[in-house]
Amino acid sequence: MTATPHDPYAAPRPRPEVTLAHIAKLAGVSAPTVSKVINGHPGVAAGTRRKVEELVQEHGWRRRPDAVDSSAVVEVVFESLDSLWALELIRGMDEVVQDRGMILGLTDMRGRRSPHSGWIDQVLARRPVGVIAVSADLSERQRARLASRSIPLVALDPRGEPDHDVPSVGATNWNGGLAATRHLLELGHRRIAMINGPDTLMCCRARLDGYRAALDSAGIPADPGLVCTGPLYVEGGRTQAQALLALPDPPTAIFAANDLQALGVYQAAHRAGLRVPEDLSVVGFDDLPLAQWADPPMTTVRQPLQKMGTAAAEMVLALASRGAPVEERVELATRLHVRSSTAPLV
Amino acid sequence: MTATPHDPYAAPRPRPEVTLAHIAKLAGVSAPTVSKVINGHPGVAAGTRRKVEELVQEHGWRRRPDAVDSSAVVEVVFESLDSLWALELIRGMDEVVQDRGMILGLTDMRGRRSPHSGWIDQVLARRPVGVIAVSADLSERQRARLASRSIPLVALDPRGEPDHDVPSVGATNWNGGLAATRHLLELGHRRIAMINGPDTLMCCRARLDGYRAALDSAGIPADPGLVCTGPLYVEGGRTQAQALLALPDPPTAIFAANDLQALGVYQAAHRAGLRVPEDLSVVGFDDLPLAQWADPPMTTVRQPLQKMGTAAAEMVLALASRGAPVEERVELATRLHVRSSTAPLV
Repeated sequence: MTATPHDPYAAPRPRPEVTLAHIAKLAGVSAPTVSKVINGHPGVAAGTRRKVEELVQEHGWRRRPDAVDSSAVVEVVFESLDSLWALELIRGMDEVVQDRGMILGLTDMRGRRSPHSGWIDQVLARRPVGVIAVSADLSERQRARLASRSIPLVALDPRGEPDHDVPSVGATNWNGGLAATRHLLELGHRRIAMINGPDTLMCCRARLDGYRAALDSAGIPADPGLVCTGPLYVEGGRTQAQALLALPDPPTAIFAANDLQALGVYQAAHRAGLRVPEDLSVVGFDDLPLAQWADPPMTTVRQPLQKMGTAAAEMVLALASRGAPVEERVELATRLHVRSSTAPLV
Repeated sequence: MTATPHDPYAAPRPRPEVTLAHIAKLAGVSAPTVSKVINGHPGVAAGTRRKVEELVQEHGWRRRPDAVDSSAVVEVVFESLDSLWALELIRGMDEVVQDRGMILGLTDMRGRRSPHSGWIDQVLARRPVGVIAVSADLSERQRARLASRSIPLVALDPRGEPDHDVPSVGATNWNGGLAATRHLLELGHRRIAMINGPDTLMCCRARLDGYRAALDSAGIPADPGLVCTGPLYVEGGRTQAQALLALPDPPTAIFAANDLQALGVYQAAHRAGLRVPEDLSVVGFDDLPLAQWADPPMTTVRQPLQKMGTAAAEMVLALASRGAPVEERVELATRLHVRSSTAPLV
């Protein structure tokens, strides 16, 4: 199934009639020269290479599906490989890729938002089947160079605004924020705080909007003093929760933007002599294994991370073989898992 | 630096004089045919391919160092990609590989001890710079096929007995077991239990022997009823700890074979109404991030997992370019980190 020709949100699609010979004619070079450029082989002048890449990008030439090498690599570039969150995504992607006899090639940017400038040359030289960017921003130039070699790109949990040129996979973050906050409202809480992640992250902005929507539909004015922001790690949650619990009129429940922050809230509560959930209800987000191991086991919004990885890998392989994904943007459902860190307000 | 010629523990080393032409002559085929076999290209009869592979393996032909492709892949095969333990190793390997402009190619065996039979064909077709097996056993046939293509293999935290044919990287597990147990002895504990992982794992056997050696040198007879075995996960530690705490003369301290098990011990203590560390001291192993986040923060034996990954990647790249590693077996030091889950016996 491919998108209809007039879908304004569709990614650039291949025109099957475009052949190497066609590109060669337009560039005024031989077909073997075009082949060399496309396959990353040496022996082509820089100017010719650039011209061919531009024409490939413009005309959307693509390998025939049966030409996709089953022993090939799907590259994944991670903003940061430092949490079980990343590992769950890897497991999902690996499942799809391994079943096709391919492997996942990992790059950890160690906290950089975009890959360094040499990275794209290395990727083009490796000729991967496709690239999946996890919470990472590729520059326009990097995206154009991938396109110039017909290497498809998929964004997994993209940081910023959805880019209609890049198909993406995410989760229903807004619904998750809504469900977490409604759960606390139904337990009778009214002073509900939210510790959010950086508001440059689209997923975090959506969770916050879900929180606000829940309060709004319950007719409770959102108190700006109860919304704060910190890094998506244990320390971030602990620091912010300590400040919230020190307020003259502290919250009785805290919704944290991920499980690590929620674990930090547990620690802040413990240090303040408060019990979870008797004195403070806590909700996390992600449902990493640690949510079950936490004491008490954590109420949290589950993101289907493995399925998100699976969907991204399937999308990039569909792009590689058919030239178009089935969907341009997939949002998988989040779901609240009620465990023991939330209790009725007494 | 290469090992001396008479080092009995040295891995098979290349004889630099062996050329493709030499192999071709021995096989009675043309040099281009040998090249096709080595580079995994089609168009060679199965019998010829096998013969060439055997000769390459026997004579130790190896690519020239400058022929190692800097855009290439180092493959890593994991028994199981399901813990932060794996992620720490990945980060260490990635650091080395990324600095050379290469990438890590991951395969998760999802709990299988050895890769499936089709895996080796895929690896040979991808022609990686080298292969790192993490807690995974390659069959003799799989090892021979890698050797037949001059693809080096390194074992990272090998499961079984060290194999002198396969260079490996591990940690000083015995010393870690010794240090954990001595710490508990110094705090006055005498009824010290150990929850171990599967005794098919060499690292676990070494930790247990370190535990026994510490008791032995303190003149305390080891009570076999205080040693038990469970999977290296939270549930494994919880189940075993529940049984230990239900003994007529229960232990006052438990040394668990990893941090996840130790977290399970916390849970068992909590359910039995015991406080950590006042009523029960607990020591883990690994020092994953969760050890700091645990409540109370966990005393544990730190494995330098990132450094182990780095060492394995450096070893496989040294093998690929020089034909021999600097060392055949590297054991990096473990170190006890005392936090708040251990206290003097009162």
